[in-house]
This record gives sequence, structure tokens and C-alpha cells, in this order.
Amino acid sequence: MKQFLDDDFLLSNQIAEQLYHNHAAHLPIIDYHNHLSPEAMANNYQFASITDAWLYGDHYKWRAMRANGIDESYITGSASDEDKFKKWAETVPYTMRNPLYHWTHLELRRYFGIDELLSPKTASEIYSETGALLKKDSHSCIGLLLQMNVETLCTTDDPIDSLEHHQTIKERLKAPKVYPSFRPDKALGMDGSADYLTYIQQLGEASGVAINSLDTLLEALQQRVDYFHKNGCRVSDLGFNQIPAFDPKASGLDQHFTSVLGGQKLDLETIENLQGFVLAALCKMYHAKGWVQQFHLGALRNNNERGLRELGPDTGYDSMGDFSQAERMSRFFNHLDNSDQLAKTIIYNLNPRDNDLFATMTGNFNDGKTVGKFQFGTGWWFLDQKVGMEAQMNSLSNMGLLSRFIGMLTDSRSFLSFPRHEYFRRILCNLIGTDVMNGELPHDMVLLGQMVEDICYYNAKAYFDFDQN
Amino acid sequence: MKQFLDDDFLLSNQIAEQLYHNHAAHLPIIDYHNHLSPEAMANNYQFASITDAWLYGDHYKWRAMRANGIDESYITGSASDEDKFKKWAETVPYTMRNPLYHWTHLELRRYFGIDELLSPKTASEIYSETGALLKKDSHSCIGLLLQMNVETLCTTDDPIDSLEHHQTIKERLKAPKVYPSFRPDKALGMDGSADYLTYIQQLGEASGVAINSLDTLLEALQQRVDYFHKNGCRVSDLGFNQIPAFDPKASGLDQHFTSVLGGQKLDLETIENLQGFVLAALCKMYHAKGWVQQFHLGALRNNNERGLRELGPDTGYDSMGDFSQAERMSRFFNHLDNSDQLAKTIIYNLNPRDNDLFATMTGNFNDGKTVGKFQFGTGWWFLDQKVGMEAQMNSLSNMGLLSRFIGMLTDSRSFLSFPRHEYFRRILCNLIGTDVMNGELPHDMVLLGQMVEDICYYNAKAYFDFDQN
Amino acid sequence: MKQFLDDDFLLSNQIAEQLYHNHAAHLPIIDYHNHLSPEAMANNYQFASITDAWLYGDHYKWRAMRANGIDESYITGSASDEDKFKKWAETVPYTMRNPLYHWTHLELRRYFGIDELLSPKTASEIYSETGALLKKDSHSCIGLLLQMNVETLCTTDDPIDSLEHHQTIKERLKAPKVYPSFRPDKALGMDGSADYLTYIQQLGEASGVAINSLDTLLEALQQRVDYFHKNGCRVSDLGFNQIPAFDPKASGLDQHFTSVLGGQKLDLETIENLQGFVLAALCKMYHAKGWVQQFHLGALRNNNERGLRELGPDTGYDSMGDFSQAERMSRFFNHLDNSDQLAKTIIYNLNPRDNDLFATMTGNFNDGKTVGKFQFGTGWWFLDQKVGMEAQMNSLSNMGLLSRFIGMLTDSRSFLSFPRHEYFRRILCNLIGTDVMNGELPHDMVLLGQMVEDICYYNAKAYFDFDQN
Repeated sequence: MKQFLDDDFLLSNQIAEQLYHNHAAHLPIIDYHNHLSPEAMANNYQFASITDAWLYGDHYKWRAMRANGIDESYITGSASDEDKFKKWAETVPYTMRNPLYHWTHLELRRYFGIDELLSPKTASEIYSETGALLKKDSHSCIGLLLQMNVETLCTTDDPIDSLEHHQTIKERLKAPKVYPSFRPDKALGMDGSADYLTYIQQLGEASGVAINSLDTLLEALQQRVDYFHKNGCRVSDLGFNQIPAFDPKASGLDQHFTSVLGGQKLDLETIENLQGFVLAALCKMYHAKGWVQQFHLGALRNNNERGLRELGPDTGYDSMGDFSQAERMSRFFNHLDNSDQLAKTIIYNLNPRDNDLFATMTGNFNDGKTVGKFQFGTGWWFLDQKVGMEAQMNSLSNMGLLSRFIGMLTDSRSFLSFPRHEYFRRILCNLIGTDVMNGELPHDMVLLGQMVEDICYYNAKAYFDFDQN
Repeated sequence: MKQFLDDDFLLSNQIAEQLYHNHAAHLPIIDYHNHLSPEAMANNYQFASITDAWLYGDHYKWRAMRANGIDESYITGSASDEDKFKKWAETVPYTMRNPLYHWTHLELRRYFGIDELLSPKTASEIYSETGALLKKDSHSCIGLLLQMNVETLCTTDDPIDSLEHHQTIKERLKAPKVYPSFRPDKALGMDGSADYLTYIQQLGEASGVAINSLDTLLEALQQRVDYFHKNGCRVSDLGFNQIPAFDPKASGLDQHFTSVLGGQKLDLETIENLQGFVLAALCKMYHAKGWVQQFHLGALRNNNERGLRELGPDTGYDSMGDFSQAERMSRFFNHLDNSDQLAKTIIYNLNPRDNDLFATMTGNFNDGKTVGKFQFGTGWWFLDQKVGMEAQMNSLSNMGLLSRFIGMLTDSRSFLSFPRHEYFRRILCNLIGTDVMNGELPHDMVLLGQMVEDICYYNAKAYFDFDQN
Repeated sequence: MKQFLDDDFLLSNQIAEQLYHNHAAHLPIIDYHNHLSPEAMANNYQFASITDAWLYGDHYKWRAMRANGIDESYITGSASDEDKFKKWAETVPYTMRNPLYHWTHLELRRYFGIDELLSPKTASEIYSETGALLKKDSHSCIGLLLQMNVETLCTTDDPIDSLEHHQTIKERLKAPKVYPSFRPDKALGMDGSADYLTYIQQLGEASGVAINSLDTLLEALQQRVDYFHKNGCRVSDLGFNQIPAFDPKASGLDQHFTSVLGGQKLDLETIENLQGFVLAALCKMYHAKGWVQQFHLGALRNNNERGLRELGPDTGYDSMGDFSQAERMSRFFNHLDNSDQLAKTIIYNLNPRDNDLFATMTGNFNDGKTVGKFQFGTGWWFLDQKVGMEAQMNSLSNMGLLSRFIGMLTDSRSFLSFPRHEYFRRILCNLIGTDVMNGELPHDMVLLGQMVEDICYYNAKAYFDFDQN
């Protein structure tokens, strides 16, 4: 029997152990997509308590606590930090077999050197112990990143962001390198709501372009793309449910956009044509800059109006959708490829039933010039766990080239999430090691070690153009 | 090599064995959803033969026999009980790797003490041996349930049911407790067919309400909910393909319902609005009573008109559908939650591609008051087997709290199906034990033993309000 | 640790080894669906090089090379055979965990006796060695088939095909038996394009029927079905994304078909009604002849217009779709079954999320006369690998009768693909052997050995009527 979370955690055989310890463990981290706060990094924020670091903003934990019958006052409400932590400690034993159980104990070990299991019995002691450490330099926001050997990271930013915090970070820090990503979801809303009109107003101000037409919208977006590029951005993102259904020959879009600016609610088909048109134009800008474009597809958000009303978005009321994905992706990426304006692309899938579909889709748009141009991204959100990661890697292996995979990112809001890279690396090494043990891969440690190192670090390093910054 | 079906069947390691034998095996059974005949229990029916107990009504076996090229006369036709049994015995060896192979031999062992494999060679002997035992008290309907330590069970009943058999059972029996469930599928048909109109007529008579409008329909249903509640019902069920697409602001529904009562066939959209409206009203009644509501989603029924014509529904011509599920569930449950009228809810999924979707959907509607309020139900129908159960539990584990899972039910028409609880418990213990062996869960037998006991028995006991009867 | 690709490759335990070596390995091959060239067989074509045999026409390898950043000139372009092979050899180490890695090395071992791993280091030597062998009789097209003990194979042919090559093969060869299959996809196009009208013209000429109406179209197709039957055809195929949505009561189809013949582009619904009508008529012809009908469903083809423009169809730009399958299959097969005109049927699924759905669908249309009448076909195209095969067999096992499965076919364009039967057989034996080791199947080697032999050979032999030729 293996001990829980020991040195060979998730490594079921000697080859896996060798691959992990000799090839994966010590490589730096390129976390090319996350939701860390640039402001916290610019100020090198020091957390008030483990509650502050762990529970404020982590909707994974909130969902688990709600399922466990914990009152909302202890989750997002007015209870004290210590009381909230105790309610979380009460929930932890009930998270066995959920990734939270592994994350929680990995993070306690790696950042705080705490080997005990979190439970009501140990809660007080762990609260004090972590609290004391969180006052130290080693446990500031930047300290936590440096502990984990984070070399490069990309935050997720709105086109209207001034990027002032990124500029501050760049002035102050040698490591890690912190770059913005360009995520224009709001600009693509097109719903004619008051929020949308306010946003367009702000985009106009940020870009210095008066937006009153599709042309001026694109002009404003181009200005922001240029500005982001100057500030080190090399990656875009999009968080739509699906790629918009898009007719490249649709006419009258200018007039429709004028209606949107006038506050009109258009029918879904017209909205999608507008979204598709602007998104395609953006993707061509990304291609011209040599950026990587990311698409996070498949979420069904804001299912609970009560939660949305009381707490806002991203508070634990999102889930997987069952959207049609294949034909929309095919048409959109074909449109870009047809004029040779398809940027390097990563598609992430939230519903694992579509993993194989996504993996085969990536094979349609490689151009024979860029190694691993079209990537099937690692397990995302709900799939960021052992079963999810294995499923994604097995689909990618069977349908494409795992060897060319750019690997893991945290996608996290938490500065304590970086052991997930370790988690991923262990799972990767275990998959490969198991195949060797079973005689399904040759026992060639040079070849296999290189494969592991590439997926953990070197592939991402080569894929993104960060070093030209 | 393990022996087939030995004491440690499905238990691949020592922790799994300890968990099963020390914590799971001896717990009583709460079978909170099945299709057992209340009449058979009220009369304590004694089966004429193993064919009577096993083959009459078991469409799983019928499908296997048809696939094996057996003539229908030996399946649902006029052949003798013994000849039918011999054709089943001929088919059994061809069911290897199908759950029927395990069910069949588990049932022979547990109820009849027969260790031999069923085949043409052993058919005659087994037919006699089981026949002799089925004449005994220990093998009456109630005897079979008591053998399996069944504490509580819920049948599935139509709102127009008089519940006389349940009343008889309650008067006659101390154990098991037998409660009705409220399944209003027929009342929600809304198709304007002669069958529907007859049904509405019967519902009017059962409730003493003349149904000539939506209001009177709801009044009649409320009367039946009250009546079922008085008779111990604490659970409802629904067997639709999908949750109806439902616009809470739809108008003119009253007029549409009048048209239905006039025998008109409305368009699908209007029918779904009617269904959604009445279903929402029913769900609010369930909430007011403190009931649990169940939804069995995803079946595509009656694929074979020839079979339907000759044998009727539920005769082995159903399969999985590929319906859209996410948005319809989201909207409907949100509607109920928004006014705080969402009852405790269990959603069951028939197409395993949607397991993860269902598991994440449950996380959107927990209210932080009821432990495990929104449940992802165990593998249903075609999924009631090892692979299906493991998939459901792995999805639930990764997306929610397995520890709060209310576990197994048979969903069966057969009095011989209760070893499926044993089957489930072994699989559960094996999943957990394997994680411990792999170092993915801590080796804490108190914690793990409690988790197993909760899932096998105590969670369901706490979740349902049966004890208040 | 097992050695890579050793004698017990993919066999993880002693029972699996016994089943494979004693029961599976030596059985002949019935490859009842592939895309081999009848002309190459008629001429007993001798390959110019391993590039000719391996890389010309194998879009699996092309996709892998494109993902690896290889320039198209080395894939489908003008580079020399040796240079193309070297680029493939450069790509092979990056295909670890992809089935190509196993196929490649299995084929080198089985056909050429080469145990080395293909890589840039070994490329030259392997190129020469294989080149020398490919000049021998043992390595002609027919030689390669005989090496692999191929007893019977079915090519895939268009109704307008003269079948002259099949006739030549029949005259010249005792073994293998080579039969045509009838694949009328083009006749069902109904899109009013110039290509379609040309095709209808050719079909008219081939059949000697002037096609100017639906009746004459069916007459022409009947003529071709008769002609194919005379030439040994016993199998049809269809490669549509989905079964057409089809209203058996649709009217005006004759006029619509006249419009199609006039070059009109009809709306999708009408096209599907036309397709469904003609397909149903064809299926009734197949039933009358006692043929087996195959449906390959789920592909999303020609995603990349650039690729299609430059290289044509089937050049590596296809992927999985996410089409609705259940209701369309249900309606169509029910239509045929209802009048007892449903032929023996095999449905193949390209998107593994639908495996369980397909497996349950097959259970709706068995008639209790033909053993295993309605088959869930083996993993197809992207799914023709270990994970895909295991998933298909596990779904089939759980939802139906694995014992009645007709097993493997290559579906390949390559004369070197036949070790895939070995691959399949090993995986099958390993699944069964593992169940025995775990105590989930009885250790009865007679029963298990028969099951393996049936699935590998005897079931297909009984299912198809080839022997009556």
C-alpha cells in the first residue's frame, strides 16, 4: 500500500518514478493561462490569513461547501475568517475522491510544510500555522510564485485594461515574467444591454476611437491589440459556449451593429453573425501579430439567478453545457485557414464527451509549417483533475501527437494553485511509465525523458513567443 | 486468479475487502425507487416457477434472447415455463461480460444457494431446485425481500392509483416498509389522444375534481399529492426524455389546455409549455410537502412499432437517446430555486456521455441548508452495471461530493433483483479501497468506513423523511 | 517490465495469453470491409518502395506529419520516395502513444521481419531492406494478403463500377476470395450539382436505364444490385454523417427529384426526404437479396477547403462530428422492420461518446430469427485503436452480446494493415482474460476459447453468406 501523498504520489511504477523525479520535477513553470490578479502581484500582496488566500474567490470550494449543507454566511458571507476556515475544514473530509482533497493537502505540504490532514480536529492549529507563514516574504504573492519555480505567467485581461499593473510588475520584478492576455468577450457581447453600451463607451475611451460602427469597433480593437502587444501580450482568449455560427457572406451587419448601439435586442442569429464577424477580424489581427489564440468552449454559465443576483458571476453556479461544437469550429477555423490567416490555436473543451471530437478537429488545420500548430488544450475547470487530465491526454495521444502537446496551465484565481503543475506532471509520467511497463512503449529513457521534458516545459517555451519580449 | 463470484467478488484488494465485509455487507437496504408490484406484495404472491419469477416481465433478458436468435414464443409467447427457462439457460453462456451473467449467478447463489453455472446442461436441475424452493414461505414475494434485509422500499405509482395495496401491506407487515411514489407522466401527456382524455377522466374521478381547465387539473393533482402523502409517499418521479422546454411567461395556456381536452393535437412547443407549466406546479407541491423529486432522463422509448403493437410498452424496445439536457434542466430548476420552491432533487441520466454534465448541474442548486440537496442518481437501466456504476461514481466524485451520495436503488420489476445492492456496495468499496492502495486516499479506516456506511445506508435514511411516517 | 511488442504484446495475464495463442492467432481473416484497390489485386501490383506501400494514400500518417510541422512536399508533394520516407521516420518517434506507433512497428515485424524502431537513425537501412523484400512475390499485393492468412475480403465499390477487376481476381486466384461491396453514397447525393448530374448519367449508362424519375433511379439501382449480387456482393455500405431524416409519407418527391435532375439546389429537408426515400428502397433490395447492410455514421468530412481544393477528399482533413443519431436511426430502422424488410445490419460509430447509444440501438431490432442480426460494428477510423476497441467492446458487452459479435475489419486502403486483426484479437483476449483473473468470468477455457474463436472468425463466417458464392 502506498502512503497518501508520498514522494511517489500518482506514480505507480518505477519508470513513472524515474521520469517524474529525473525529468519533470525540477523544470520551471510556464503558466500560460490563469486569472491571477495583476494588482496583487504589482503590490506584492500579503494575505491576511489562509482564508484570504484560499477561500476568497475559490468557487470550487464554495460549491463543495454548499453541497455539504454549509450556510452561505460561512462561504461568501459575513462570518469571520477563522469561522469560515473551520467550516471549510469540516467539509474537507467529505471531499474525498474530489480533486479538492488532493489540492488541499498538496498545497498545505508544498507551501506550508504541513503533512496533517485538514479536519475539524486540526483546523485551529493549521489556521495559526499558515497564518504565521503568510506574514513572511516567502509567502507574499510573489514569494508563493517563486517558491514554485514559476518562470512565466499570463493573466487574463480585458481590452480596456490599462495594463498599469503589468507595467509595474515588469519594472519591479526579474522573475516571474508576467504578461497580459487579450480576452475580448465583453466587446463581443452584442446584446444591446446597458452594460454592453457602457462597455463600448469604455472601449472607445481606452482606445481613443469613437465607436459608432463596425469599422470603428475594429479600429478600437486593433488599437488595443497593438497596445497589448507592446506590453508583452502574445496570447488571446475567448470564453464563449460555442464558436459563433457565422456566415462570412452575411450582409447588413453594419446596420445591425448600429441597432445594437441604439440599445436594440437582435435575434440570436444576427447576434451570432455580428460576433462571428468581429471575432474573425480579431483572429486575423492575432495572426498578424504572431499570437496564440485560445478558445475555452463548453461552459453553461450563471445557471442560478438567485446566486447571480446575490453574488455576481463566477461564484460557483456554472456547469457543463451540451452544445454542438464540431460544425461551428470547422467553419470558423476553415474561414481563417482559407486565407492563411489562422494563428496558432488552442481549443479547450469543458465537456469530456467531446474530447475525441476536439482532438480530431485539431488535425484538420495544421499547416505543416508550425510544429503542433493546432493544440487540444489540457483538461479545463471541472476537468482539471486526474480523470479529466488522463482523458484529455489519452484522446490527444490516440488522435494526435502527445509529444507535441504544450501541457499544463492552472487557469486559477489562486496564488496557491501551482502544485497543479506537479499534479499534471506526475499523471503524465505515470501514463507513459505504465505504457512502458505494459510493453506498449519501448524502454528508451532518453526518448521518453525528452518527451516528458518537452510536454512539461520545452514545447510551451517554443510555442509562445515570450522570449522575444 | 480469483474464483468466479467468490466471497471477495469485485474486491481487488484488502482495503476493499475490509470495507465491504466490515462496513457494507450487513447494512439494511433502502430501495427508494423500484417497479415492484404492490398487489403481489399485498397478496404475498408465491411464484409458480423460476420462469414466473425471472422471465415474466424482465425485458433485459428478453433483449438478450432476441439478440441470441431465440423465437419470440419462448420469450413472451405461449411456450411452457420450462421450455422458456431452457431457452434462457441456452442464452446465458452467451451473456458473458453482460451484467445479466453476473445478476443471474448472484441471484441463484443468494436466493437459492445454487453455485453451478446456468447452461443447457444444468437447466433441468436448476429448474426443479428453484421450483421447490419457490413454494416455501422463505421464497414468497415478502420472503425474498426479508432474505435480503430490505428495510424500506418505494414502488412507482400513478396519481390515479387507489393505493389499496399499500394500505393492505401496511396493515399486514412490520417489515419491509412499503411506500408509494408519485409518478404523473400520464397526466403530463397533453397530446390530445383518446388515451389521454380517458386518463384525465380517471384522474377526475380519483380526485373528485371535474377537470375542465388547467386550474382544475392542478386541483386534482394537489388532491392526489395530499392523498399520496397521507399514505406515506415522500417521493415523486418523472420519466421524460428531457425536462420540457418551458417559458414561465407563456400566455394562453388555459386555452391551449381546453383544446387538448377537446382532442386537438397541438404543436410540440405548445405541448412542452403546457407540460412545463403543470410540472412546475407539481414540483412546488412536492416542495411544500418536503418530498424528494426524481427525474429519470434520457430514454428513447418504443423504437420498434412492431414490438409495441404486439407486446405493448416496456417490452425491450427502448434505448438511449441523445437529447439536449443542460439548458432545459438549468432553466427549469432555476425557475423553482428562484422562488425558493426547489424540493430535494435527484436527476438520473441514461446516456453516460452526459454523466459529467449531470454531475456539474447538481452543483448549481444546492442551497447550503440541506446536506446533499441536489443528487446525481446512480447508474440507471442500461447503466446499472459495473462500468456504468463506476462511471457515475467517478463523475460524482470529481464534480461533487461522493460522501453525500444516497447510493443504490434497484429500479427493478423483479423481486429477485436485490443482490444488485450487494453488487453496488462491492463496486463502491473497491473504488475506495483501490484509491487507498494507490496512495490517493489516506489509510484511515474510521473515516473510510463511515463514508461507505453513509453511502450504502445512512445518507438515504437521512435524505428521505420516511421515518416520520 | 514487458518488452515492447513481444510475443505477449497487449496480453497482461496468463489467461489472455492462452486465449490468444491457442484460440485466436491462427484463425484465417475475413476482412469484410476495406478500401483496397481491386485493380492492384487484379494486377498483383508490386510496390516500388515502402513509401509507395505505406505513405501513398495513408491520410493517418499525413495528419501526423502535418502536426509535426513537416512540409507538404514531403507528404503528398513532389519529394522523392526516399526523402518522404525519411520525413516519416523523423515523425515516428513523436507518434508514441498514437496507434501509428504500434501499427508501424507491427507491420515492420510481421511483413519484413524488422525488429528495430523506425527513427532517423534507422531510416536508410529500413528503406533498403523493405525495398528489397517488396520486389519479391511474397510481398506483392496478393503475397502480402496471403502472408496474413486472409481468407475473404470485401472491397468498397460504387454502383457504377464494372467489377471487371473482381472478375479478373476471381478467375486468377483461389485465395483470398475478393468480393465487392455496394456503396451508393454518390447516387444519394441529391444536391443538384454538376457532379451529381454527371454521376446520374454514368449510373444510367452502367445500368442501361435512362434515369429521369425516382422510379427509373430505383430501377437503375436495382439493376446494379442484381449485377453486384451476381458478382459475389453480399454487403452494402453507406458513409453518411447521419441517417437521413425521412418522412415515409412525404409527397411530391417525384417532382423534387425532377428539380434535382434539372440542377436545382433544394432545401436540406427535401434533400433528406429524397435521400431517405431512395435509401429505404435500397435497403429493401438488400433485404430481398439476403445482404448485410453497413452504415458508417458520424464523420464530419472536408473541414479544410484549402486541403480539399489542393488534394481532394480523403486526404486527412476529416474529423468526428457531433450529430444527433438516435431518433433518425430509430425511425429509419423501424420503418424497415415494420414491414419485415430489415436486412442484417451493422452500425459503426465514429464518435465514441455515442458508443453506448449505438449499442442499445442494436437491441431494438433483433427479430429472434437471426443470431446477432443487428450488430454494433467495431471501432472505426479514429477509433481503430486500443482505447477505441476496448470502449466499443465494453459498450457492446454491457448493452448486448459480445459473444455474438462479428469482430474486426481493417477499413483500410493499405495492403499492410492486416496486423490490425492481430491487434484486435490480442485486445479481445486481454479483456476476457482480465475478467477471468479478476473473478468476473468463470475459468472455463472451453467456453472462453469458443467465444474468442467465434468473435475472431466463426461469427463473421456464419453472418455473411459468402460461402454460397
